[in-house]
Amino acid sequence: MTLIECIPNFSEGRRLDVVDQIVAAIAAAPGVSVLDRQSDATHNRSVITFVGDETAIGEAALRGIGAAAELIDLNHHEGAHPRFGATDVVPFVPLRAEDMPLCVAVAQALARRVANELSIPVYLYEQAARRAEHRDLATVRRGEFEGLRAALPGDRARWPDEGEPCLHPTAGAVAIGARGALIAFNVNLETGDLALAQRIAREIRERDGGLPRVKAIGLALEDGAVQVSMNLTDYHVTSMADVVDAVGSRAAEAGVAVRESEVVGLLPEDALVQLARARLFAVGFGREQILEARVLDTLL
Amino acid sequence: MTLIECIPNFSEGRRLDVVDQIVAAIAAAPGVSVLDRQSDATHNRSVITFVGDETAIGEAALRGIGAAAELIDLNHHEGAHPRFGATDVVPFVPLRAEDMPLCVAVAQALARRVANELSIPVYLYEQAARRAEHRDLATVRRGEFEGLRAALPGDRARWPDEGEPCLHPTAGAVAIGARGALIAFNVNLETGDLALAQRIAREIRERDGGLPRVKAIGLALEDGAVQVSMNLTDYHVTSMADVVDAVGSRAAEAGVAVRESEVVGLLPEDALVQLARARLFAVGFGREQILEARVLDTLL
Repeated sequence: MTLIECIPNFSEGRRLDVVDQIVAAIAAAPGVSVLDRQSDATHNRSVITFVGDETAIGEAALRGIGAAAELIDLNHHEGAHPRFGATDVVPFVPLRAEDMPLCVAVAQALARRVANELSIPVYLYEQAARRAEHRDLATVRRGEFEGLRAALPGDRARWPDEGEPCLHPTAGAVAIGARGALIAFNVNLETGDLALAQRIAREIRERDGGLPRVKAIGLALEDGAVQVSMNLTDYHVTSMADVVDAVGSRAAEAGVAVRESEVVGLLPEDALVQLARARLFAVGFGREQILEARVLDTLL
Repeated sequence: MTLIECIPNFSEGRRLDVVDQIVAAIAAAPGVSVLDRQSDATHNRSVITFVGDETAIGEAALRGIGAAAELIDLNHHEGAHPRFGATDVVPFVPLRAEDMPLCVAVAQALARRVANELSIPVYLYEQAARRAEHRDLATVRRGEFEGLRAALPGDRARWPDEGEPCLHPTAGAVAIGARGALIAFNVNLETGDLALAQRIAREIRERDGGLPRVKAIGLALEDGAVQVSMNLTDYHVTSMADVVDAVGSRAAEAGVAVRESEVVGLLPEDALVQLARARLFAVGFGREQILEARVLDTLL
């Protein structure tokens, strides 16, 4: 059975009773487990993490989108984070890379249901995009709720991928997509030299010609040490082990040791299987050799 | 919730219908998952792997022991592997090291039930041993079914830990214990030099003054390469990463590279958490950060 993660972002981070109701709508769908929820009052936005198989996950997402459409009115929403919908973005993430096509199919099927059953227009983004110009979420969401409302239906370039070319009057639009798992990973250095952390971050990040699928910045920590703070947007391309090496070797050249690293939030088990293959040379190792994975398979 | 692994060995490896019935008896207990079964005709012995929580696992083991007592008669058993019972050994293994005391309690409670409900005498071994001289399984099983039958009840030193000091007439005795997870791990070298693999095995194994909790031998593989074949009996003391380093550095001194390594069979997820801590310096990383582990927790 295939497990898929869904991490919808809802445009409500202050009225926690509203978020409760959205979470409850998702959790009431059969076959999904809600693993995490985070609300941010400044962003006025909540992020809910849940998992389920390819049939359960779309139904649960639909229920969450439906609840948000009933409870959130974008005409009365303000917050620091860009948004264009009551449910703003719905990414599906495969727990194993080979399940990406299934996530794309789940995203596209959900898009049709959201348009047909909830009358909310949908933009398909990243791996689920049908049009290359919709791959980038920031492009899709340009102008936010207010700007897109004004642009539709006149600007054909901004028409949605599913649904009528006009926003839902209160719920706006939804971006539904598929993307790989992102790992938030930091390496802390035994030094207070912020310039070193910033230089290493520049050298290793993709934007400045470094490692592919790596975003990085240098930060000062409260305890006086410094950190190279990273997002690995495709750990199959550049892994945690790769960036530990890249940061560690550059720090060592400056006479500085790695103090420790941190995984922020959750990661797929597959990232640890990959680590065993890379660092133990266990090229044939697979998740079916992990006792707990076998137990999970018997329960699903 | 705590997951415990149980890997009972039954003295039947030829009549597979008998093994089927024992597996069915175990699988019928609520709350356990049978993950694996292996039968060996030469040894005339079968190994069944199942997992469950601390309440389910003992009941399932009892049912398996009961089924074996009905179906196997040690008076008519012969095979290459030493044995003294229809159910010969029943080790309980914690999936996390901190659950060892719970495994000891499960083993000792099961021992009482086996003696009282099935009238089979029980020896408690390894971590579950009540008497130091019963820690070692080979010592407990010395003389096998036939030898122990002759020694009891006269030889008080051989009395069981639970039950009457005489063997069950057909089912013999059972050794029930608790031990840490064992990882079978091999490192294959880019050479046909068997003497090198044998020398490295000697240097790294505990028996010859090498790494603690490591058993190792050197073997020739069919494809012409050689292997250092290991059992890690406590990966918290000496890990897979430790032995990759130990073998790899010795091979490198001889100008030989590591070709790959192999994990044989199953390992606990905890061994991968340990690997992330050691090789990524992710000192605070824990299983609660693994998505699949969170899913498993919601299902158990």
